[in-house]
Amino acid sequence: MTTTREIHLAARPVGWPTANDFALVQRDLPPLAAGQVLVRNQYMSVDPYMRGRMNDAKSYTPAFPLGEPLVGGAVGEVVESTVDGLAAGDLVLHGLGWREHAIVDGGGVTKLDSVTGVSPSRYLGALGMPGLTAHVGLLDIAAFQPGDTVFVSGAAGAVGALVGQIARLRGAKRVIGSAGSAGKVAYLTDRLGFDAAFNYRDGDVHGQLAAAAPDGIDVYFDNVGGDHLEAAIGRLNVGGRVALCGAISMYNASEPQPGPNNLALAVGKRLSLRGFIVSDHFDRLPEVVAEVGGWLRDGELVADETVVDGLDNAVDAFLGMLRGTNTGKMIVRL
Amino acid sequence: MTTTREIHLAARPVGWPTANDFALVQRDLPPLAAGQVLVRNQYMSVDPYMRGRMNDAKSYTPAFPLGEPLVGGAVGEVVESTVDGLAAGDLVLHGLGWREHAIVDGGGVTKLDSVTGVSPSRYLGALGMPGLTAHVGLLDIAAFQPGDTVFVSGAAGAVGALVGQIARLRGAKRVIGSAGSAGKVAYLTDRLGFDAAFNYRDGDVHGQLAAAAPDGIDVYFDNVGGDHLEAAIGRLNVGGRVALCGAISMYNASEPQPGPNNLALAVGKRLSLRGFIVSDHFDRLPEVVAEVGGWLRDGELVADETVVDGLDNAVDAFLGMLRGTNTGKMIVRL
Repeated sequence: MTTTREIHLAARPVGWPTANDFALVQRDLPPLAAGQVLVRNQYMSVDPYMRGRMNDAKSYTPAFPLGEPLVGGAVGEVVESTVDGLAAGDLVLHGLGWREHAIVDGGGVTKLDSVTGVSPSRYLGALGMPGLTAHVGLLDIAAFQPGDTVFVSGAAGAVGALVGQIARLRGAKRVIGSAGSAGKVAYLTDRLGFDAAFNYRDGDVHGQLAAAAPDGIDVYFDNVGGDHLEAAIGRLNVGGRVALCGAISMYNASEPQPGPNNLALAVGKRLSLRGFIVSDHFDRLPEVVAEVGGWLRDGELVADETVVDGLDNAVDAFLGMLRGTNTGKMIVRL
Repeated sequence: MTTTREIHLAARPVGWPTANDFALVQRDLPPLAAGQVLVRNQYMSVDPYMRGRMNDAKSYTPAFPLGEPLVGGAVGEVVESTVDGLAAGDLVLHGLGWREHAIVDGGGVTKLDSVTGVSPSRYLGALGMPGLTAHVGLLDIAAFQPGDTVFVSGAAGAVGALVGQIARLRGAKRVIGSAGSAGKVAYLTDRLGFDAAFNYRDGDVHGQLAAAAPDGIDVYFDNVGGDHLEAAIGRLNVGGRVALCGAISMYNASEPQPGPNNLALAVGKRLSLRGFIVSDHFDRLPEVVAEVGGWLRDGELVADETVVDGLDNAVDAFLGMLRGTNTGKMIVRL
């Protein structure tokens, strides 16, 4: 019998979570049933949406149960299989992260056809959920067209960095990002090829956006809400489009946050604001792997990772990601 | 030389307008130039959007100039014409209301093919801009589908009354309206065939909407903004759609109004909110005249009017419309 370790949700965080809300638990692995695979996880993902699922609020994705292991994207190697078409040594993507070993039903596993020269961790980032979120949000939800000026908040994060680069590679007129430090701002312009960027912690988001977008913006990809959304509404051109992708600030808010005080501008400017959830769009993932994988291989797109080692450090990685200590995708290597 | 009378914007209203912001002016009509028609106006429209155009704020429709006649929809009879295809006696629709006679360029005039048995004033209401606004907002902007539950605010107004009835006639599961008096609420359910209605002046818009829509709503047609929009966002089902049509409360606001404090729900519920301006959609008017005209003739759709007589009373009609003294379309007969 193999023992393994996993991280449980010990308490529902109120506001910003702390280490006390989690527990590292050791347990024995049960024997494999028919139709299951045992996976040794190599990489697991920590993502902003996980914070939302720690709340008990009525939502359209179920809350994580207390006292049970958390879930999330993971990539690993099959150790044992009772599923046809999956054998020991196969590299797979599945939804049971936050643990060193996972026993997964065959239907919950995607066998990865590696993109040559790309780390398996990419399937948790540029070639996985963050890549799909950026692609669908920009192209479908915000209906991006070549020639658009695009603004993305949280632009140094896993999703934001891809939104800006996909926009650039698909012919945006101008790509603008906001982030939370001078270092990240330099990273956006110097390494990711953004045309302009600003540090929202310097204040006056409206003024900084106006300076960065003298001719207005056509698309706003919202990872932040709050004053960013209000500034974007003020700056959007006629026919402008907003993809509402969720916001760390909202997940951690204990009270309702005031909405944008200029939403009435949406009438005269014919704006559209659309919320979306990436899990509605998993059928589009192969398209993203093909397009973004090609750009990655050719060096046209940068997908940096902040890698933290060991399940013991997974909670710190998650908390750090919420605070913005990562640049690009935050990954835990197990 | 014929003298005529017209109403000028004398001052820019601050907040709610008063009679002092307008002036009734008598003047001589100049001789007709080539390519013009002289029209004796029979009916003119007073509409909420006109309040917006009295502000000097930067907008996407130009502000009404001070010291000049107001403009707006009007129907009248051609008295004299130098335009091919338009002759004395023709009934025409044009954009120079707020005056007893109008001299209009030929290109600004639409000759009306009357729908038999329907008053010409209909072309300012159900068969005109309000009808087009209701049709486009419900069907295109909010992407109404048979089986949807629809909520419309300002439901006893010219646009709202049509939104609810078009939804009913096109197969809504349930139609809910809000209005500003007990009499209007009874009017919505008893005369217009709404399934439920409530008086927002009784307070607790969230609670009243929840009671009227136990299974949630799929479409919200927003004529009001503020707490109605917030309540609608709270009550919208997954995939819900909002048509943002402008709001009297917004036009008269001197300060920015707080936005809905629950806009973050748009992410998980995959909501879309879209603003629109009817003038982008004038090409759809013949379709509206055909469909709504048919329903009107067959008695399936009610389009009541509140008719005020005489240009001397046009300002009062406009101010009354802003306060909600009308039921259905407010019309001035000249």
